[in-house]
Amino acid sequence: MEPRSSGVAPGGVSVSAVLPAGGSGERLGGATPKQFCAVQGRPLVSYAVRAMERINWISDIIVVVSPENIETMKTIIEKYGHKRVTVVKGGITRHRSIFNGLKVFAEDEFSCHLLQKPEVVIIHDAVRPFVEEDIVSKVVMAAKEHGCTDYDLDYGTECLHLALKYCKTNAKLVEGTADLWKVTYKRDLYAAESIIKDNLSQQVCVITNVKETLAQVGFLLPESLKSQIKVEAISISLSKNDSHLQNIISGQCYNFVCVNDKRCAIQETQELVDMLEKSNIPLLYPVVLILVHLDSSENNSFSIGMEDLTTIKKFARETKKKNILVYGLLIQHKDPLLLQETVNSAAALIMALIKDRNPELIGQLLVA
Amino acid sequence: MEPRSSGVAPGGVSVSAVLPAGGSGERLGGATPKQFCAVQGRPLVSYAVRAMERINWISDIIVVVSPENIETMKTIIEKYGHKRVTVVKGGITRHRSIFNGLKVFAEDEFSCHLLQKPEVVIIHDAVRPFVEEDIVSKVVMAAKEHGCTDYDLDYGTECLHLALKYCKTNAKLVEGTADLWKVTYKRDLYAAESIIKDNLSQQVCVITNVKETLAQVGFLLPESLKSQIKVEAISISLSKNDSHLQNIISGQCYNFVCVNDKRCAIQETQELVDMLEKSNIPLLYPVVLILVHLDSSENNSFSIGMEDLTTIKKFARETKKKNILVYGLLIQHKDPLLLQETVNSAAALIMALIKDRNPELIGQLLVA
Repeated sequence: MEPRSSGVAPGGVSVSAVLPAGGSGERLGGATPKQFCAVQGRPLVSYAVRAMERINWISDIIVVVSPENIETMKTIIEKYGHKRVTVVKGGITRHRSIFNGLKVFAEDEFSCHLLQKPEVVIIHDAVRPFVEEDIVSKVVMAAKEHGCTDYDLDYGTECLHLALKYCKTNAKLVEGTADLWKVTYKRDLYAAESIIKDNLSQQVCVITNVKETLAQVGFLLPESLKSQIKVEAISISLSKNDSHLQNIISGQCYNFVCVNDKRCAIQETQELVDMLEKSNIPLLYPVVLILVHLDSSENNSFSIGMEDLTTIKKFARETKKKNILVYGLLIQHKDPLLLQETVNSAAALIMALIKDRNPELIGQLLVA
Repeated sequence: MEPRSSGVAPGGVSVSAVLPAGGSGERLGGATPKQFCAVQGRPLVSYAVRAMERINWISDIIVVVSPENIETMKTIIEKYGHKRVTVVKGGITRHRSIFNGLKVFAEDEFSCHLLQKPEVVIIHDAVRPFVEEDIVSKVVMAAKEHGCTDYDLDYGTECLHLALKYCKTNAKLVEGTADLWKVTYKRDLYAAESIIKDNLSQQVCVITNVKETLAQVGFLLPESLKSQIKVEAISISLSKNDSHLQNIISGQCYNFVCVNDKRCAIQETQELVDMLEKSNIPLLYPVVLILVHLDSSENNSFSIGMEDLTTIKKFARETKKKNILVYGLLIQHKDPLLLQETVNSAAALIMALIKDRNPELIGQLLVA
């Protein structure tokens, strides 16, 4: 989801970015301008900012918004912990807005530079949530090769034509990827949501408590999941600070399955929640945490009562505030012959919970 | 979801449609050509066919596919009960394919007409799943006004240019709607899926069993749902054949909530499943059916045991084969002061189940 930045600007040039975010979103058919529409609970503009921010050779990120949205934008920057961002008031047209963004770098006769003047400025639409470092690198290289002084390079053909027509720069079209598209209509918001969910569903960490009774499920469950998702399986006691688990968390894993034989195992899970919270991982995307409870009781009734359900629900409501979505899953382990089938059904439910990332279903107990 | 056709062709002309469906889907990044990709379990091409088929003044629908997909296409037509459709072998280019489609209407010197020759032929991409009758009407009217003999009119500018260049017809661009877009990339499939789910989540029918104990929830639940979705609330015994319910079903409602105080109430629900099956409603889209069980038992444990859970699961697996997705929902009714809150939480869960339409979660029992 968040590849590490190479750390080196292409050609060693200094680079900054201007993100025009002043659109009104009329074509989207809603009251909220599209750049402020929530995708997985976070405004679209925050995705575009993050896309630039994680490229660590981009010095400054200038977001240009309409006057009425300046406070909203500042709140977003604070809430999601964005760094190196300056908010600038936009003009009445997109080009005037970009001009206002660029002015921040301009030398002022009566004062000092407002921000350090970069050699290349990337113009990146705030409604294009997905852009990878290699594309931005290509744009910067193209800018350098075609040597203009101040350079406005956009990805789309539309803007390229405008640039050629009005700016008389040596604009060059840099080939983008299919994911670089712009959110214009409501269907694009839907697609963005699905792409993000897809990206967040690439890897799961299965943590099994170090207990003999769990060994079999601790082995079978990751095996069953492997056909659908990359799996990191570890067997540890969550109360111990494990460096391997720390590495997995800081490697941007957004899905965790905790297998335990204790009812709910809230206490142990709290340790994981604390680790996740400290890592800042749930800041940008919701994390899925599935508490798997192994039920090997002999009688024909639930081994989890209404009280446990209330406990899970309460816990889930609390962790949701931290952007961690908690679900319960009961694996019945009675007939050893049926265990494989039950585990497969558990894996299917886990995949459904991970892919859907549905905040309404938190605290529910599913049965495999 | 399925507006009734006006029944009258614009200007009284005879109209048929050709759907080129021969693309290879390379840009989609998958092995399956996009027109055969499943959206809500049904191939995209079936949506495009349905879009034409429900306009009852379109006489014939010609689907042009690559030779290797002819059998697949025929199976799709049979499975989804499409009428007035002829499958034709495509050529090596899109234009050659359209030509092959049109040939079906051509007079043959040695035989009779293969299909009645229409005055206007609509060319509609098989990867544009959404098109409304009024747009098709406009296209037909434009074709009539600009009076060519055989007329190939497409919606996109791209095709319009091709038509102007190569066909020397009086092509005219007809303004389409935002929903008329073409599925090209994987993100478009995601968007199509979300749009369809959205369309299917416009209306819910809440059926409450005629019992005094249920009266309060039977009133509160529809009220709580009303803020989010159009609600038809009826209080009947499902074992009786109710004409109002029949009307709701034939009015293309895709979501049903059955409130009962019996455990699971499988028997009663079976009646509804039978009615739905007979109506052919689940043929084209999955129907959501939520069994709400009111739990007013005094003790602090589940009033539903493992046995009931197994019953719901088994029932859900059976009805899924009929494209009906069954979920269980338990409303706890102990503290009268908390009832409104519990009902609101039930409504939120119902909305989540309807919007997600997740086939993996069938047979699960959620607790409000």
